[in-house]
Amino acid sequence: MNRTAAAALAALATLATISAVAAAPAAAQNAPSPPATGSLMPVPRSVTWRQDQAPLILDSTFRVTLAGVRDARLSGAVRRMLVRLRGRTALALATVPAADGSGATLVVRADAPGQAVQGTSEDESYQLDVSAARAGLHAATVVGALRGLETFLQLVEADARGYHVNAVGIDDAPRFPWRGLLVDVGRHFMPPEVIRRTLDGMAAVKLNVLHWHLSEDQGFRVESRRYPRLQQMGSDGLYYTRQQIREIVAYARERGIRVVPEFDMPGHSSSWLVGYPQYSAGEGPYQIVREFGVFDPVFDPTREEVYRFLDGFIGEMVGLFPDAYWHVGGDEVNGRQWAANPRIQAYMRAHHLENAEALQVHFNQRLLRILTKYHKRMVGWDEIYKPGLPTDAVIHSWRGTESLGRAARQGYSGILSAPYYLDQQFTAEAHYLPDPLPAGTDLTPEQQARVLGGEACMWAEHVTPETIDSRIWPRLIAVAERLWSPREVRDLDDMYRRLWVTSARLEELGLQHEGHTARMLRLVAGPEAAELTRLLRVTQPATFGQRGQLQRPNQLTPLAYLVDAARPDPPARWETVRMARRVIAAPQDSATRADLTTALGMQQQAARRLVNRGVTSPAMAQVMPAAIVLDSLAGLGLEAVRAIERGERAGADWTSTALASLQRWERPQGLLRLTAVDAVRLLVKAAGGQ
Amino acid sequence: MNRTAAAALAALATLATISAVAAAPAAAQNAPSPPATGSLMPVPRSVTWRQDQAPLILDSTFRVTLAGVRDARLSGAVRRMLVRLRGRTALALATVPAADGSGATLVVRADAPGQAVQGTSEDESYQLDVSAARAGLHAATVVGALRGLETFLQLVEADARGYHVNAVGIDDAPRFPWRGLLVDVGRHFMPPEVIRRTLDGMAAVKLNVLHWHLSEDQGFRVESRRYPRLQQMGSDGLYYTRQQIREIVAYARERGIRVVPEFDMPGHSSSWLVGYPQYSAGEGPYQIVREFGVFDPVFDPTREEVYRFLDGFIGEMVGLFPDAYWHVGGDEVNGRQWAANPRIQAYMRAHHLENAEALQVHFNQRLLRILTKYHKRMVGWDEIYKPGLPTDAVIHSWRGTESLGRAARQGYSGILSAPYYLDQQFTAEAHYLPDPLPAGTDLTPEQQARVLGGEACMWAEHVTPETIDSRIWPRLIAVAERLWSPREVRDLDDMYRRLWVTSARLEELGLQHEGHTARMLRLVAGPEAAELTRLLRVTQPATFGQRGQLQRPNQLTPLAYLVDAARPDPPARWETVRMARRVIAAPQDSATRADLTTALGMQQQAARRLVNRGVTSPAMAQVMPAAIVLDSLAGLGLEAVRAIERGERAGADWTSTALASLQRWERPQGLLRLTAVDAVRLLVKAAGGQ
Repeated sequence: MNRTAAAALAALATLATISAVAAAPAAAQNAPSPPATGSLMPVPRSVTWRQDQAPLILDSTFRVTLAGVRDARLSGAVRRMLVRLRGRTALALATVPAADGSGATLVVRADAPGQAVQGTSEDESYQLDVSAARAGLHAATVVGALRGLETFLQLVEADARGYHVNAVGIDDAPRFPWRGLLVDVGRHFMPPEVIRRTLDGMAAVKLNVLHWHLSEDQGFRVESRRYPRLQQMGSDGLYYTRQQIREIVAYARERGIRVVPEFDMPGHSSSWLVGYPQYSAGEGPYQIVREFGVFDPVFDPTREEVYRFLDGFIGEMVGLFPDAYWHVGGDEVNGRQWAANPRIQAYMRAHHLENAEALQVHFNQRLLRILTKYHKRMVGWDEIYKPGLPTDAVIHSWRGTESLGRAARQGYSGILSAPYYLDQQFTAEAHYLPDPLPAGTDLTPEQQARVLGGEACMWAEHVTPETIDSRIWPRLIAVAERLWSPREVRDLDDMYRRLWVTSARLEELGLQHEGHTARMLRLVAGPEAAELTRLLRVTQPATFGQRGQLQRPNQLTPLAYLVDAARPDPPARWETVRMARRVIAAPQDSATRADLTTALGMQQQAARRLVNRGVTSPAMAQVMPAAIVLDSLAGLGLEAVRAIERGERAGADWTSTALASLQRWERPQGLLRLTAVDAVRLLVKAAGGQ
Repeated sequence: MNRTAAAALAALATLATISAVAAAPAAAQNAPSPPATGSLMPVPRSVTWRQDQAPLILDSTFRVTLAGVRDARLSGAVRRMLVRLRGRTALALATVPAADGSGATLVVRADAPGQAVQGTSEDESYQLDVSAARAGLHAATVVGALRGLETFLQLVEADARGYHVNAVGIDDAPRFPWRGLLVDVGRHFMPPEVIRRTLDGMAAVKLNVLHWHLSEDQGFRVESRRYPRLQQMGSDGLYYTRQQIREIVAYARERGIRVVPEFDMPGHSSSWLVGYPQYSAGEGPYQIVREFGVFDPVFDPTREEVYRFLDGFIGEMVGLFPDAYWHVGGDEVNGRQWAANPRIQAYMRAHHLENAEALQVHFNQRLLRILTKYHKRMVGWDEIYKPGLPTDAVIHSWRGTESLGRAARQGYSGILSAPYYLDQQFTAEAHYLPDPLPAGTDLTPEQQARVLGGEACMWAEHVTPETIDSRIWPRLIAVAERLWSPREVRDLDDMYRRLWVTSARLEELGLQHEGHTARMLRLVAGPEAAELTRLLRVTQPATFGQRGQLQRPNQLTPLAYLVDAARPDPPARWETVRMARRVIAAPQDSATRADLTTALGMQQQAARRLVNRGVTSPAMAQVMPAAIVLDSLAGLGLEAVRAIERGERAGADWTSTALASLQRWERPQGLLRLTAVDAVRLLVKAAGGQ
């Protein structure tokens, strides 16, 4: 990245927050409607509603016209936007941009096509101006215009008279230039259509990097012509052809998304070595690994033929992946094969390489030479950050924000992923609040500019093509907002409100997350599906770590359990928390209390119905522990509400017993966690005066 | 088709019904469980449950092995079956057939691979034998084995201990050799993935013909190398490449499904003539037609170059479509261009062709010559059945069963579609009961054998790739049963019970019909989706004719209205009818009555909530007329229940007023019809003593 541009951008972002703060929800409480952030997600840098002006009416006469540069990418995007608008509104809109600008409702003007190969310095800013008479979208580049088109779609609202867009002025640009999603297709392969719809969703929330994790111990996923045994022996037949790769890279570019490939090395590389054991540090033969974890097979960094192989491989692959960055992985090398190989040990002594870490630095330096030859910048996980690493490498942090700061001080650019692991099954909130550059950072502006952004990670130990949508969405939208919007945008109530609206709209792109639980239950639970759906709406999956411990799934385990039907952080969790907070804040407000007791009462009833029904099927057996605990949990919540209502402080014994129960009940029951735990804990603490 | 084989098959089917009757639901009422038909759909010819034997336990040791002929099609089908079984049960089953038969749970033996090009005489029979120790599937051909694998999947059940298959002996074969689905991709194009998942669903319910309606006034959908302007000018860019066609034909064959192409001529051919106006009977130029109906453009049957063109085109296409049959359409020629063309009129006089019909026979005779040259048998719609048509043509009846019988008496083979038009938005029941060979037919056995079967038709005026699943499924399953199962299988309660189980299971193939209403409402109704979903569960779309009159959609109309979200014949309709029947049969049974009043009461409440909410959006405006009427309709139903409970006959005035109201209320409200009308009419009539 051009550092000056990044610094300027960061400075701009800081300035820009002034108007963003003005538009933040707290400020909006005087004006009851519409909320200052509308249904916009991520929230733009600056939004100025013109409440004194009439809205732009959207009817079947709506026309879009293109001004500025002629660009196939932009006209394609306009066409797709119009198709989506037709699908939402049933308005008989023409789906081609109007040739003639006169009478156009939305005029889209991009000054330039944008970079031939999109990079981190691509200008993604845009300005959108909507008045009663017309809307204008202006951007310096086509990519900026793509972002603005998504914002326009988010502005469309309905009322009794039909569809409209409120008058508004928006001046928007991203806070960070690198806003990505890692998709691990190594552990479970994801077919091209899954990648395509994921890209569509990413574009809708203004993400711009697909980090494609293409090789793992469990699978090598790209067709190589030069080394065909890679896919022939390392993929179970599940890989992308060169043609499919080209199509997906082009599909991403159409949407203003870069594709950064990752070929993890020297570790996590068992699947390479099945076909090419001669490049390993051990003996072989190797097999595709079915378990998950860290394994011994590793490249041998001491032999020239290994680098010739890697040079040949990378030389072939650069023809498929035009991006300037190249992710080499570099994580979790256990060093056992190196330690066990006398020849490698001798080499290390001869080259004064103290330990495995030093040997990996040595490997990386050779790798860097190859990448430089192919005009690629190296990106690698935390582990590559070792003395001796040239500063034009980029550190991808999976260990935490601190390592990012440390690297930035040393002159390295960095990307943050540690708090954004979607596979953990954490809440949207947990991913939303951590900031790559938190308020009060002591980095200098120049160092701050080295923090390029972040990536959410969809590691695929526990994910299949059937479940991936429900694991990525809607939580990824919260990460997208963190990386695009001003730092000060962090109101959770407002975030969740917009998250659910945005999430539902994403289904127009073919994503299937909203219907996931019900669909999967129809299949695995048959006639019991409706009853189980009710319960699964108030449960969430065990965390990644919990499931790994409790069930130890491997690559061949069918992921068709109720835990796979459950969705992380379903709306019921935050809704109950919010109701609990209101009751605690206003114990005498009987309407608020009634909402909460109804919600908890319904959870309890659903649980009891299941318990009374008894175990009639394997699906039922899986849900039973959660149903039994939910009965008690909801009961405790109701007790706490009554105590709060009475206004007497609950006894210390009651409180400590209740909190101890909650500690047990927040553990997975079966493999399901109950979403009411958070709200009930708030209530119990309030009842106990804590 | 080999007529002797067909006759033998028909005779066999007649004999076989003896055991089918023995297995029918009425006979099963002595043994409370399981129902004699299990979850089998279509019901096999003969099912013998062995209730004295323990079930076959299905756990992770389940293995399938292949005996008999080695066949890639069969091992592929076993693999797909095992993947589906994993998805339903979460059992960690190996997904490849075991090489070693010892210890296999299911042994699949096919004696022969089946016909190189599957024809109407393909043997689809199979025998399935399940005991506690093992299951055996035997078939004369691979296609028979594919059918048996689907039956095996339908036998899998769950209880508290896990999964099992009850001990059973099944001897099955289809009643008709031609069991098809027409998919019209002319009026709205359906992408290859839609066709593929449709084929998967068809195979699951033992259908064996995809009738692919590939050309229409509104679009020409196949790539021609010889005449590229066909797709270039006639398709809006929406067509199948030759490669895609080949892949889909192969995909169908993998599943034991024939693909019969239809290129409709000489009418319904505007899209051909856009690129090749010189072959028309009129002047041109032509455009792709956007409205729906019958249009003037037609081929000129009087010029040799037209037949050279058709010969060239068919000569190219036969390379893509190996099936022995070729559908030429031939329907709805209005004859205007022929009448208006003096040269054609002169030709007709010269050749003693009395009228347009005679000219079409003339055209068909030339066409038949071309088809014969390419070893294809002609199939055409009712209109081709005219004096002079050779008897090896096949009549496809869209006008009714009578025309089929008439043709059979004259020596023609026939296929019935008239009662199976899925686009009509009729109930499953309406398609289920009509029989291609009704009981008491006066056709001779030889004539009966000429009735090859039937095809459900999914005409696509009002259907898009988003809505097609919900228009085809689950109703197609009822047609599939009519065409496969013995004539005597026609109990509606039992049909609906099995229909819903089967329908839910089809989603494992990627079909999206069950989640359709909720998904579409999330998109078009946003925050109101949940409330609207409740109402749409008790509505069904206006019929094809009603919608055409009321809304007149054309090809460019976005099909994203609430009528497109609603599903034909949703479960609520039959459930309410069934409850009403029970109440009428046993007015004093308070539990039954409570079920019905709860159901009607909930419909009324849902309606009132919507009415009270008022019109807040275009989606809400669309549902409001139905909500208002539903309030009254449910109210009337409740009134009738009370009258029935009291046991007094309601007054004639009340009854006639009520019936008059029902006549209004069965009309579409907006574009939605209320499903409760059928039940309420039963109740009103019962209350009035009618």
